[in-house]
Amino acid sequence: MPVISVTLLPGYTPEAQSRLVSHLAAAARAVVPASEAGTIVFVHEASTFRRDARVLTGGDGAAALPDAVEVVRAFLDAVGRRDFEAARSWLAPDFEMVFPGGALMRDLTELPAWAAARYQSVRKHYERLEQAWQGDVTVVFCSGTLQGRWPDGAGFEGVRFVDRFELAGGRIRRQEVWNDLAEARAGRPTAP
Amino acid sequence: MPVISVTLLPGYTPEAQSRLVSHLAAAARAVVPASEAGTIVFVHEASTFRRDARVLTGGDGAAALPDAVEVVRAFLDAVGRRDFEAARSWLAPDFEMVFPGGALMRDLTELPAWAAARYQSVRKHYERLEQAWQGDVTVVFCSGTLQGRWPDGAGFEGVRFVDRFELAGGRIRRQEVWNDLAEARAGRPTAP
Amino acid sequence: MPVISVTLLPGYTPEAQSRLVSHLAAAARAVVPASEAGTIVFVHEASTFRRDARVLTGGDGAAALPDAVEVVRAFLDAVGRRDFEAARSWLAPDFEMVFPGGALMRDLTELPAWAAARYQSVRKHYERLEQAWQGDVTVVFCSGTLQGRWPDGAGFEGVRFVDRFELAGGRIRRQEVWNDLAEARAGRPTAP
Amino acid sequence: MPVISVTLLPGYTPEAQSRLVSHLAAAARAVVPASEAGTIVFVHEASTFRRDARVLTGGDGAAALPDAVEVVRAFLDAVGRRDFEAARSWLAPDFEMVFPGGALMRDLTELPAWAAARYQSVRKHYERLEQAWQGDVTVVFCSGTLQGRWPDGAGFEGVRFVDRFELAGGRIRRQEVWNDLAEARAGRPTAP
Amino acid sequence: MPVISVTLLPGYTPEAQSRLVSHLAAAARAVVPASEAGTIVFVHEASTFRRDARVLTGGDGAAALPDAVEVVRAFLDAVGRRDFEAARSWLAPDFEMVFPGGALMRDLTELPAWAAARYQSVRKHYERLEQAWQGDVTVVFCSGTLQGRWPDGAGFEGVRFVDRFELAGGRIRRQEVWNDLAEARAGRPTAP
Amino acid sequence: MPVISVTLLPGYTPEAQSRLVSHLAAAARAVVPASEAGTIVFVHEASTFRRDARVLTGGDGAAALPDAVEVVRAFLDAVGRRDFEAARSWLAPDFEMVFPGGALMRDLTELPAWAAARYQSVRKHYERLEQAWQGDVTVVFCSGTLQGRWPDGAGFEGVRFVDRFELAGGRIRRQEVWNDLAEARAGRPTAP
Repeated sequence: MPVISVTLLPGYTPEAQSRLVSHLAAAARAVVPASEAGTIVFVHEASTFRRDARVLTGGDGAAALPDAVEVVRAFLDAVGRRDFEAARSWLAPDFEMVFPGGALMRDLTELPAWAAARYQSVRKHYERLEQAWQGDVTVVFCSGTLQGRWPDGAGFEGVRFVDRFELAGGRIRRQEVWNDLAEARAGRPTAP
Repeated sequence: MPVISVTLLPGYTPEAQSRLVSHLAAAARAVVPASEAGTIVFVHEASTFRRDARVLTGGDGAAALPDAVEVVRAFLDAVGRRDFEAARSWLAPDFEMVFPGGALMRDLTELPAWAAARYQSVRKHYERLEQAWQGDVTVVFCSGTLQGRWPDGAGFEGVRFVDRFELAGGRIRRQEVWNDLAEARAGRPTAP
Repeated sequence: MPVISVTLLPGYTPEAQSRLVSHLAAAARAVVPASEAGTIVFVHEASTFRRDARVLTGGDGAAALPDAVEVVRAFLDAVGRRDFEAARSWLAPDFEMVFPGGALMRDLTELPAWAAARYQSVRKHYERLEQAWQGDVTVVFCSGTLQGRWPDGAGFEGVRFVDRFELAGGRIRRQEVWNDLAEARAGRPTAP
Repeated sequence: MPVISVTLLPGYTPEAQSRLVSHLAAAARAVVPASEAGTIVFVHEASTFRRDARVLTGGDGAAALPDAVEVVRAFLDAVGRRDFEAARSWLAPDFEMVFPGGALMRDLTELPAWAAARYQSVRKHYERLEQAWQGDVTVVFCSGTLQGRWPDGAGFEGVRFVDRFELAGGRIRRQEVWNDLAEARAGRPTAP
Repeated sequence: MPVISVTLLPGYTPEAQSRLVSHLAAAARAVVPASEAGTIVFVHEASTFRRDARVLTGGDGAAALPDAVEVVRAFLDAVGRRDFEAARSWLAPDFEMVFPGGALMRDLTELPAWAAARYQSVRKHYERLEQAWQGDVTVVFCSGTLQGRWPDGAGFEGVRFVDRFELAGGRIRRQEVWNDLAEARAGRPTAP
Repeated sequence: MPVISVTLLPGYTPEAQSRLVSHLAAAARAVVPASEAGTIVFVHEASTFRRDARVLTGGDGAAALPDAVEVVRAFLDAVGRRDFEAARSWLAPDFEMVFPGGALMRDLTELPAWAAARYQSVRKHYERLEQAWQGDVTVVFCSGTLQGRWPDGAGFEGVRFVDRFELAGGRIRRQEVWNDLAEARAGRPTAP
């Protein structure tokens, strides 16, 4: 039943407008128990817009923020390939990572060393990528299972994990990781 | 700059409308890089509304969904008090919990036994409660640190954790937990 | 897909608003091939309205026009009961009736005499009452079958008829009748 | 006084939009007693539209339904020329015709034979073409007088008639005819 | 042709809303050459309104500014009665008056002395009170003619004048006066 | 807080739309005590518009009225250059001027003669140009100081003046002038 109308300046791409209306529908349905069939969202472009004594006319629309999930995918993809140069292009200058046990790192290149003590190799199987929209900040939660090899070469799989990525202005400024690797290690037949 | 207008039937409380407009503002600002000052959201109540050949008039508005964060708070509060009766009132019939290591439980009363082997007592310090609005489902992520006592009585604190709560229709149907307890245990001077 | 918003002054009853939104949905769907599910119509009441230098505020809404089909039903009902006094309350001062063969009458009391030569009694079975909205004028078409007795007492039934009622300002100003009675009469075994 | 705003996707021609706003004005004025001067209708094109989890953007507008009166005119025109091939292009597959006396026909080519017994030739003078918008169906009523020649060659004119055309999806699926020909025949100096 | 919709929080009186829609109509017609008949302005009350992260719901509407012309009338009325106490209630703390010749005064009580040299008595006949709306400031121009007695008792009338009143926040902060008194004095048969 | 939406037909230039939204913001803020930051005005172009049974579609928008202040500037500019031909292009056929003392003139060429008795030369220093929007009429008030030479060659400056220009349909139909020249003359050491 909710009908949501958004007035924007022209200039936003169909993809950005599509993302916007989908966000709004989801956000509204978290409060109003309406079906998708009964949730209507549309965009009206204003030819002229004035607020705070400033007049904007057609085409002055700012670029939209990138899709946070796509930014995180691109980042994780680059890290997975150990292409830290490309990965850094998605990071904010004050980027920080916190890994299980509380280890805090600021540079991606610190990762291999930190990881070497924990596993020989690891691959992340993503099951869910979920977004929390908080205005200036968008948080993306990725969860799924880890598959890989312990330092001694034995394999592991199905180890639960969740990552929290904090984005502002389209850039990742914080990544936090939790997983069951320690549980899995402690539960191994041969304790480390 | 985005101006968002929502048409609703009358009957939603000021609290529900307030939550709705805040949701919409946050969701919009995740796509359109506008300041809070430039993001306008308001509600117009329609005296009569027709869709799918059904006409609704004043006051037929369905009740709003409860605030997911408040539901989770109330649930965690009751669990903390071991008041499982009250806690269950927030759960969906098919509720499932997954704890570190992959332990799956369906009944809250299973918790004490499962926990006894891991810690004598534990208290959760919540730092963030974040919502991902997904239409039919709202997911709440709670993160913070754990403080408590190991089975041998020694204390621990600052152990990272994150919970994922999945809600539908205002009820919790799934809870997933990750934390650094195993890391902390493995890192204890005297290994268990 | 069409979303139709109507701004009205307050004061129109829920029934009138319901009729209005249904009219608008039907009228729109005659041009835009949308399903009922995708056709949305709602009413926003304006607290203040200004046009042509006149300002109207809450509650100045004029009464709605009566439902034309209900006016015609009430009229036909009264005529059927030969309660011409009540029937006249639904007529405009310049009311005219045109019957098969082109007979023009202005007074309902002329009916019995005109009818007596054609049939002993007649009853109208209405199958459809359809409205053509033409702004200042609403036309109602009633169609169905006639059942009754010829002057010689023999019965007839299933004789097709259609009436056209022209209403303005909620009053009937013209009624036109067509039917197959002459066909039926000519087709009788015993020709008159 | 009513102000009606319609939100549509782009793609509808000016003619279709013109027809739409005129329909809406007429439909509204059948309930709200406002003058034409005080009835305002306009179309806002939405750059993006979402309902039922589907997002449509610019130019995805479906074609408008044809003007029912124009379809009926084109059909009657072709029938009048005995160009049944062209006439059939306006008909739905399940088209049926009901003529005075209840004769039911499905094929236009049956017409000449059925008519031959009744009249040598006939021409329809249309005075009114009126539309009843019923959502999925639009009904067009045509009324006026018939002029022609009886089988014996004598002429007739001014014979009242009304046709009811039922359209769905822009095609005619049913035509019903009533007229005073039997009355006129019975009233001829030399009875047949 | 312009249709202007204003969304406000509830709480503004019918008088304030009436003034608002009239202002907007006049302001629009200074740019768009539309007739009064074609200029439509209405107010929709929003049940909830959010901007700059603040949510306002029903009834939080701030009081409207007073009608600037009424403030000026009340002020001039009080001054005319020499009721400076009442007159001051309409003034801003930094009020200044500039009279012909450039005389600057801050206190109303200075007026009688300044005037005594110029005329024995004077009455203002107002023909026009015109408003210039400038956002934070509203300027009212009053013009008409002066009638009175010269110091020597001889009468004068029809002497042109114009006053400029500058208002902010509903209070008068500046008054400037121009008139033809000097012209009239110089043109008197017996020069002073 | 007020959100003002204007529906116009396409065809108005960005400049005209900009002027329109600024007018509306100023007019609204004269009644509603909102900040510029909280005053939102935008224009939606309607693809089709119907009122008073007339349908207008894209691009039929009438030209906007010229900016009254610009018209007055251009006029005063031409008069200052004594280019009465150019100046007249801004005047309505029934143009009238009223100068201090009540002198009424209809032709600009009468000015030099009238002025010669009063001053040798004069230049207007404009400090403020203010607009009063009155629907069919826009009034512009210009105020500032005069600088020039008396007939005897002595100079004067800082003499207060105000002009009232009445415009309709983009043309000046009336100019009224007030100033302190007579005051200044009377106050000269050597009386004329």
